[in-house]
Amino acid sequence: MTTDPIALTADLIRCETVSPAEGGALQLLEARLAAAGFTCTRVDRNGTPNLFARWGTRGPGPCFGFNGHTDVVPVGNRDDWSFDPFCGELRDGWLLGRGATDMKSGVAAFVAAAIDFVTETAPEGAIALAITGDEEGEATDGTIALLDWMERQGERMDHCLVGEPTSPEELGDMMKIGRRGSMTAYVTAEGVQGHSAYPHRANNPVPALARLVALWSNHVLDDGTEHFDASTLAVTGFETGNEANNVIPAKARAMANIRFNDAHDSASLCRWLEDTAAAETARSGVKFHFDYQISGESFLTPPGPLSDLVADAVEAETGRRPALSTSGGTSDARFVKDHCPVVEFGLVGKTMHQVDERVEAAQITALKAIYARILAQYFSGAIGAD
Amino acid sequence: MTTDPIALTADLIRCETVSPAEGGALQLLEARLAAAGFTCTRVDRNGTPNLFARWGTRGPGPCFGFNGHTDVVPVGNRDDWSFDPFCGELRDGWLLGRGATDMKSGVAAFVAAAIDFVTETAPEGAIALAITGDEEGEATDGTIALLDWMERQGERMDHCLVGEPTSPEELGDMMKIGRRGSMTAYVTAEGVQGHSAYPHRANNPVPALARLVALWSNHVLDDGTEHFDASTLAVTGFETGNEANNVIPAKARAMANIRFNDAHDSASLCRWLEDTAAAETARSGVKFHFDYQISGESFLTPPGPLSDLVADAVEAETGRRPALSTSGGTSDARFVKDHCPVVEFGLVGKTMHQVDERVEAAQITALKAIYARILAQYFSGAIGAD
Ligand SMILES: [Zn+2]
Ligand SMILES: [Zn+2]
Repeated sequence: MTTDPIALTADLIRCETVSPAEGGALQLLEARLAAAGFTCTRVDRNGTPNLFARWGTRGPGPCFGFNGHTDVVPVGNRDDWSFDPFCGELRDGWLLGRGATDMKSGVAAFVAAAIDFVTETAPEGAIALAITGDEEGEATDGTIALLDWMERQGERMDHCLVGEPTSPEELGDMMKIGRRGSMTAYVTAEGVQGHSAYPHRANNPVPALARLVALWSNHVLDDGTEHFDASTLAVTGFETGNEANNVIPAKARAMANIRFNDAHDSASLCRWLEDTAAAETARSGVKFHFDYQISGESFLTPPGPLSDLVADAVEAETGRRPALSTSGGTSDARFVKDHCPVVEFGLVGKTMHQVDERVEAAQITALKAIYARILAQYFSGAIGAD
Repeated sequence: MTTDPIALTADLIRCETVSPAEGGALQLLEARLAAAGFTCTRVDRNGTPNLFARWGTRGPGPCFGFNGHTDVVPVGNRDDWSFDPFCGELRDGWLLGRGATDMKSGVAAFVAAAIDFVTETAPEGAIALAITGDEEGEATDGTIALLDWMERQGERMDHCLVGEPTSPEELGDMMKIGRRGSMTAYVTAEGVQGHSAYPHRANNPVPALARLVALWSNHVLDDGTEHFDASTLAVTGFETGNEANNVIPAKARAMANIRFNDAHDSASLCRWLEDTAAAETARSGVKFHFDYQISGESFLTPPGPLSDLVADAVEAETGRRPALSTSGGTSDARFVKDHCPVVEFGLVGKTMHQVDERVEAAQITALKAIYARILAQYFSGAIGAD
């Protein structure tokens, strides 16, 4: 008897897991995986629930890993939904509820595929599942905590697949082999306050910061690289807090969010920002102070055995060979990439984070089949000694 | 017996007249002027107290006018003062209190000079005093209300002197023959909101507005004109109200305060701002909306008989020939100039609007003497048929 990924997805949707609530989701998965012979460990940190499950031994054999999350973003205004966001109901072929695409279906598909595979095949090697309850929130105690714990325990994955939705239009049209990095620069410009009738006695930080913002916004960071779209910079805030039209304020601040490819790293971008600010200081005397939030560096798992393995399985099941993309926002693959080669493949993400989130039930079955084919190929030696 | 301008200033300081409170100041002046034969009328409008006083007839003879205000700016924190701000005490030759320089001393000096002059001389013609209780506030019902009322009543001034402090360092070193105009442009930039990871799906108004602010701030409006300093533009505010680093906001707003000379007027400046914005819209698609606050156009009473009369009197009393300036902020002369030639001359303004505001008592006596000499020369025909 095989594991039904649609029923498992529905069970997970019925767990209320708005980040970082566990909602019974990891307990449910732990029970199912333990029954199938997986060694399960809850790796909670600072109130964030995480589950690690391994089938097979920690020994020298190959270990294939899956990563995913059971938490979901808030539902917003429930009145905007045409069904209960946590109903998990199957209606006209669609499974309904928050997390249906992002990504309880993905977790259910790889859990079901892994359970059935080890039950039927008993492969040589290991399968590791690292499932977090906080990917949508701060993510400071989620997949990072799992990876920290694994390292300390001698647990490892040789290759990893993150089951996030990656297909823009049709199942199988895209997989991710990397992601752009993301950082935010918070800049404060400090001049000298004064009266607008006597601007020569003041030093207005607003034009100085505006020139910097214009320079940054007009600058072409790059035209894209072999595997990446062009880097982008968006100044998303600019504030003086001053409402007095005749007062030149002493300070102004702005923030710039940068999504960057492998032509840059956060350190080189910080240097560039500070060099442009130093030139502006030399021009106007306005001083600049920077604070940064580095969400993640860009990373790439170059096309090769792992992406071939996944693309072959996708093509065999869907008839589509997925494009190898690095587009979109961040995902926990940014953490996994420090430990082993990682790619991402999952469902069509159209309704993710929206009201009336839903997934075609047949797609969950198809995704399970793709994951099962990946496991079968992997343990039959598709990826050699790399 | 002559009128003591120091005692009169002290009496006025003891009236608490933070704008727009009358505080007994105009009542006091009305009583003194009426006793000297002036026809007095309170011209209050919308709760703002104003006093018009005329000696002589409304007929065809020359009429010299004085304009001033009895209201004062707030005292701020009284603990910062080393004396009661409304004490009006004479200490070591200094008269102390809020309004000592701006401009109860100026009002007292021209009231005392006018009373003594008409008492001693009974000139042919008229003297008009337009004294408001709201120059420091909104000024919408102060000198404007007096001038409106005068026009309706057939009251006029052929020439006017505003008694504001005009001397930067020493009594007599400067008079004003005009003022720059002042206006504030409030601009809203409207783009398309979006996620900073997908900036091509949004249209960020922040860089567009920053480019405009940089362009405006870098632009040299002029290098000054014959009688005016260069015009200035100060962007005093720039806000998005957005604190989410990954959200491109739909709107941003800024305000620019412009002090402009006679090379411009508010209409030409509005056109220039809107033309630059239209060019930016053509570039980026971001739309701009403008609101304006026009505080006053620039004006100039060209050097001539009136400025000569005043400068001669100042030089005769102080040994200094005043520079003819148009610098500084606005004053009610911006309203008077629509009715007759107007200049400004008064005390050293160093402590105006500050804590421990004070005036050297001897300077009030000197100012009265200057105003008296101006009246004597005026009515002896110094300014002819102009
Ligand atoms: Zn997700
Ligand atoms: Zn004043």
